[in-house]
Amino acid sequence: MKLLLVNPNTTDTMTTGMRLAAEAVAAEGTEIVAVTAADGPESIEGYYDEAFAVPALLDAIRAHPDAAGVVVGCFDDTGVDAARCVTGAPVIGLCQAALHAASIVAGSFTVVTTLSRSVPAIEQLVDRYGYARMCRRVRASEIPVLALEDPWSGARDRLRGEIARALDEDGSEAIVLGCAGMVDMARALSEEFCVPAIEGVTAAVKAVEGLARLKLTTSKRGGYAPPRSKTYQGMFAGYGPG
Amino acid sequence: MKLLLVNPNTTDTMTTGMRLAAEAVAAEGTEIVAVTAADGPESIEGYYDEAFAVPALLDAIRAHPDAAGVVVGCFDDTGVDAARCVTGAPVIGLCQAALHAASIVAGSFTVVTTLSRSVPAIEQLVDRYGYARMCRRVRASEIPVLALEDPWSGARDRLRGEIARALDEDGSEAIVLGCAGMVDMARALSEEFCVPAIEGVTAAVKAVEGLARLKLTTSKRGGYAPPRSKTYQGMFAGYGPG
Amino acid sequence: MKLLLVNPNTTDTMTTGMRLAAEAVAAEGTEIVAVTAADGPESIEGYYDEAFAVPALLDAIRAHPDAAGVVVGCFDDTGVDAARCVTGAPVIGLCQAALHAASIVAGSFTVVTTLSRSVPAIEQLVDRYGYARMCRRVRASEIPVLALEDPWSGARDRLRGEIARALDEDGSEAIVLGCAGMVDMARALSEEFCVPAIEGVTAAVKAVEGLARLKLTTSKRGGYAPPRSKTYQGMFAGYGPG
Amino acid sequence: MKLLLVNPNTTDTMTTGMRLAAEAVAAEGTEIVAVTAADGPESIEGYYDEAFAVPALLDAIRAHPDAAGVVVGCFDDTGVDAARCVTGAPVIGLCQAALHAASIVAGSFTVVTTLSRSVPAIEQLVDRYGYARMCRRVRASEIPVLALEDPWSGARDRLRGEIARALDEDGSEAIVLGCAGMVDMARALSEEFCVPAIEGVTAAVKAVEGLARLKLTTSKRGGYAPPRSKTYQGMFAGYGPG
Amino acid sequence: MKLLLVNPNTTDTMTTGMRLAAEAVAAEGTEIVAVTAADGPESIEGYYDEAFAVPALLDAIRAHPDAAGVVVGCFDDTGVDAARCVTGAPVIGLCQAALHAASIVAGSFTVVTTLSRSVPAIEQLVDRYGYARMCRRVRASEIPVLALEDPWSGARDRLRGEIARALDEDGSEAIVLGCAGMVDMARALSEEFCVPAIEGVTAAVKAVEGLARLKLTTSKRGGYAPPRSKTYQGMFAGYGPG
Amino acid sequence: MKLLLVNPNTTDTMTTGMRLAAEAVAAEGTEIVAVTAADGPESIEGYYDEAFAVPALLDAIRAHPDAAGVVVGCFDDTGVDAARCVTGAPVIGLCQAALHAASIVAGSFTVVTTLSRSVPAIEQLVDRYGYARMCRRVRASEIPVLALEDPWSGARDRLRGEIARALDEDGSEAIVLGCAGMVDMARALSEEFCVPAIEGVTAAVKAVEGLARLKLTTSKRGGYAPPRSKTYQGMFAGYGPG
Repeated sequence: MKLLLVNPNTTDTMTTGMRLAAEAVAAEGTEIVAVTAADGPESIEGYYDEAFAVPALLDAIRAHPDAAGVVVGCFDDTGVDAARCVTGAPVIGLCQAALHAASIVAGSFTVVTTLSRSVPAIEQLVDRYGYARMCRRVRASEIPVLALEDPWSGARDRLRGEIARALDEDGSEAIVLGCAGMVDMARALSEEFCVPAIEGVTAAVKAVEGLARLKLTTSKRGGYAPPRSKTYQGMFAGYGPG
Repeated sequence: MKLLLVNPNTTDTMTTGMRLAAEAVAAEGTEIVAVTAADGPESIEGYYDEAFAVPALLDAIRAHPDAAGVVVGCFDDTGVDAARCVTGAPVIGLCQAALHAASIVAGSFTVVTTLSRSVPAIEQLVDRYGYARMCRRVRASEIPVLALEDPWSGARDRLRGEIARALDEDGSEAIVLGCAGMVDMARALSEEFCVPAIEGVTAAVKAVEGLARLKLTTSKRGGYAPPRSKTYQGMFAGYGPG
Repeated sequence: MKLLLVNPNTTDTMTTGMRLAAEAVAAEGTEIVAVTAADGPESIEGYYDEAFAVPALLDAIRAHPDAAGVVVGCFDDTGVDAARCVTGAPVIGLCQAALHAASIVAGSFTVVTTLSRSVPAIEQLVDRYGYARMCRRVRASEIPVLALEDPWSGARDRLRGEIARALDEDGSEAIVLGCAGMVDMARALSEEFCVPAIEGVTAAVKAVEGLARLKLTTSKRGGYAPPRSKTYQGMFAGYGPG
Repeated sequence: MKLLLVNPNTTDTMTTGMRLAAEAVAAEGTEIVAVTAADGPESIEGYYDEAFAVPALLDAIRAHPDAAGVVVGCFDDTGVDAARCVTGAPVIGLCQAALHAASIVAGSFTVVTTLSRSVPAIEQLVDRYGYARMCRRVRASEIPVLALEDPWSGARDRLRGEIARALDEDGSEAIVLGCAGMVDMARALSEEFCVPAIEGVTAAVKAVEGLARLKLTTSKRGGYAPPRSKTYQGMFAGYGPG
Repeated sequence: MKLLLVNPNTTDTMTTGMRLAAEAVAAEGTEIVAVTAADGPESIEGYYDEAFAVPALLDAIRAHPDAAGVVVGCFDDTGVDAARCVTGAPVIGLCQAALHAASIVAGSFTVVTTLSRSVPAIEQLVDRYGYARMCRRVRASEIPVLALEDPWSGARDRLRGEIARALDEDGSEAIVLGCAGMVDMARALSEEFCVPAIEGVTAAVKAVEGLARLKLTTSKRGGYAPPRSKTYQGMFAGYGPG
Repeated sequence: MKLLLVNPNTTDTMTTGMRLAAEAVAAEGTEIVAVTAADGPESIEGYYDEAFAVPALLDAIRAHPDAAGVVVGCFDDTGVDAARCVTGAPVIGLCQAALHAASIVAGSFTVVTTLSRSVPAIEQLVDRYGYARMCRRVRASEIPVLALEDPWSGARDRLRGEIARALDEDGSEAIVLGCAGMVDMARALSEEFCVPAIEGVTAAVKAVEGLARLKLTTSKRGGYAPPRSKTYQGMFAGYGPG
């Protein structure tokens, strides 16, 4: 089974980090195809960045029609609804996957993300996915996404400080790491703070791998129906695979 | 005062229709600048179309930095959040404007849109804007957007049939016309059915014109802060003003 | 176009302040008729005061049948539902208008009002209008309404202190001023705190002026139908204009 | 213990009907003092009627300061919030009492009221009291309130027809009778339809009688604090007890 | 009228405390039959304890088929839904009864319970009963249930400290005591803090006594229908009355 | 990895059906241990049955401390909260798993279950898990659970009829099969109706298998903390493994 992991952040080192994490948890027989979007922002930090990330994301999905499942590698779940229109394979973003996982292992949780500007978009997702009651708060640690890759940035200490505040002030039972760049931190944070620390990349890989194993496909009745008219797609040749 | 009306549907006749409607209600001294997006789908019918419509929409907004207010001419409120990041002028989409208007003149309403595939996106907006209780139902009349422009398509009769069912079955006190292409039908439908029939283009023009008159600008604290890093914007040269 | 602004607080200086603010933002051709209710509390501070303010408010509206739109000049939206029954013109209160405006220029906001006793009524309006998620908190600055008119009361400093706390503790992107008596403070507070500070009188004037321009009228199907039997109206002669 | 039952509908026969029902269920030692409001509509049917019913309702409550509990005899819970400001005794309206009772003996219910115009006000109460999920629907039987008193009006048959539809179409487990004029019908309807049929007058009497027995009084911290300034009360001399 | 009060906590002294409180508020002619469950945890502190408390609770109810009403003496409302299936008498738990009472005498409230582990179960009840907006917070005072019976445990002081914080930080208008073991503290706390302090046992007794007086019985249409097949009941002989 | 699948319905043929379905989707290296609860109802149909099913369910979980994940084989998610207290392994019920899966492959869905009496419990779960907006309706096909095992009962035709109505009347994009006994029907129904038909057993197996692979464990901070006092556990010897 081939799972497609598209990183809409056009930063290859992030893609590599996600791929390694995904491969570490994939079942035997699952192949992870990790792709960096051809165009778009280096790191998605808010609504504006999301807008420019989606066309190349959709192109990447169309370029892999044999994928049995698709992970959109961004905690904003950028373009997930559009992606569900262009493939029958199940599609999930990091946020939905992480929230699902958190809702099974805990009765309440706090999302800790990077910058304040990213908080409202995540709050909208929390609400849309039905976790307004379970999710006590979406907190920003004020770390730029790419600083997470720099060991000297002090980013991890700020993240740990925010998690400590989440447990103390919000009374949450688990922590959701609200950024794809935190993919390799979950285990250590979980051990340090003695609560589940949930990371979206691995949660998403297992979610779509599971659905693909059940042979569930995206409903084509309603909002995820294939695009009706394709005449304008040629306009976006700059994004496409050919 | 200059108001920018961007039509993210790349169909000039729709833009003209919106412009005429907008000019008919604008206050003295308000200039309507109506622009068709340079790239994107002819008509936005669902999530996929939305994704490809946003980059050119944002370019159009950046090309008019002197606009005192911006109307996004689509009932899906396509790209409105991103648009609020690139300008300080107030920005509104047709859906939010129409729902606001409906909530003042009626205690409940039904949205009647074009195709079933467009319903879920509108339902999400209804919920996000807080109208889940006032909005009794989002109904599709199964009319393609562009058929609204064809007098022989029977589209208007189907729309009238769906409105009749909305009043009868939903018990709604008003009708919201859920498509930019219905801009010129509101008055006649209102008279025929003896309830307010609310259309988004004119509602949106008056809403941003009013906010601009109050000198209210979009908050730059939080989700609508300006994009942090602009390095990737060059990648989208094909969309930009040059 | 004639817009009726009724102040259900029977304090003429408040009415004058509202009228001046309204006139400053009205479009060319819009005439503001500002009326102080003939009977009722000097300042509406909670449920009890509201109850006694409504009959005279309704009388004032009936006395101006030619108004194209009606603003109820109280942040509790006192009597707005009843007012919608006695006129076909669109009617709005300060709270609904301010919340609408805030929801366009910000992703979240805090309402800062006068006394704690007024908070629950405003919280109910926030919820009813669908802003429970966008409105982070309704805060009291513990200023009596009429103290706002007294330059030596220290009221403005207390208000500024509460706004500072709202931005710091609630993380809100905008401030809604929750009292008609704050009509002249919005601009200065907006500049001082670098976020939109939204005031209801001017927001309401532009909202009903816009709806009136669209020739939208209050639905008479359902809750806002005209009163069925008028036999008891004579009992309230003490409230009426004649 | 003296319980005050105020009928804000100024129709004495309704007051008598309520009093008889109340006395039939009162505990030993409970005295029911039933009062018709001195002024106001003959029957409250919607927002407008409510507005004119409240001042006399409040006067009646102030005239009985020794009441250990107060029932507002209207299913719109007209003026209940204001009433809680003028007495320390617990105050309840028919709607809140009936919904409470229904939520104990059934998992879901339908409210059947008189006219369509009354539906939106009841829907708002259902939502405010937290019963949006339990209450499947608020239905109108299109019976004017006073027709309920006329045995030849056919009102009871229409009511029975609407109850039958509620059970069939809504799948509800109980019926709430949404009008004070239905006070004597609950038992017979309950037996006919084999589901609980809940009537508000008796439910309210038992609710406040119970709270009074527990010596619980209305909180004076927050929204139900006593009116701050009473200077304007003299203006309403026409309503007062002296 | 005979009311059954079952304590699913198998601690007789708690049962005695509840019985005395119940008898103190029962109407003339109401007999309180207080029963300690034959099996189960000494004190119910969370989901696990609840699970083991229910079978014996149901047996106790079946053993008293002549009860006109049933109170489940636990603030987790343990087994209330199941109990409603085995009797036609109205059944209520302490939580639902206390929340109902609080919603009449206050506009907002805080629940103060014993241990953190009990908070999530109560939060679920608050939400299910529709009080998510009125209930500002569910707080734990970190007192084990049985410590409430030990005058030297310092439990009462910790409870008072938590109530003080609830009033200060939550701005609540009333306090709900979230544990059956707090049955005798309500009056004193109410006087000390000058807000209603509501206790569930007495609230529940008056609620079911009232419903029984109205001859309302549990709906047998839907979720509370009698168990369809009883063949497995014999398996639970260890719990039954013989 | 060993996954424990406990069937709280004490019907061995159901357990066998679940086991076969689970084994068919388990990853290589995953061992399914399927256990029928030692005591309890043959089929869980509503609140009462649930109550008697939980103690033996918990005993079965305690008897397999080496399980890396636990599936509670009932669509009522019977005892899931209590189960999360007695193990660190992730625990999920069929309902939560099926709703999660549906929310990924569709924008809306209808749950089709067996009897009307089971509907309210499922509606509560839908609401608790946050799917009140996505789930259009919970429908009963009026089929007793065990009839699903009888090929001559006509049960499948009734189920198919209800699914057809769900698609037609609710406009749902997917179907959730709301009973463990429907485990083998999903594939055929999915093909017949051309929408995803989601079944809980396989969805639950993949969900906990995935979480176990991520080494996520149930939070012990808050509601799922281990039972504090175990002294009463001996009382339930009749349920335990010995």
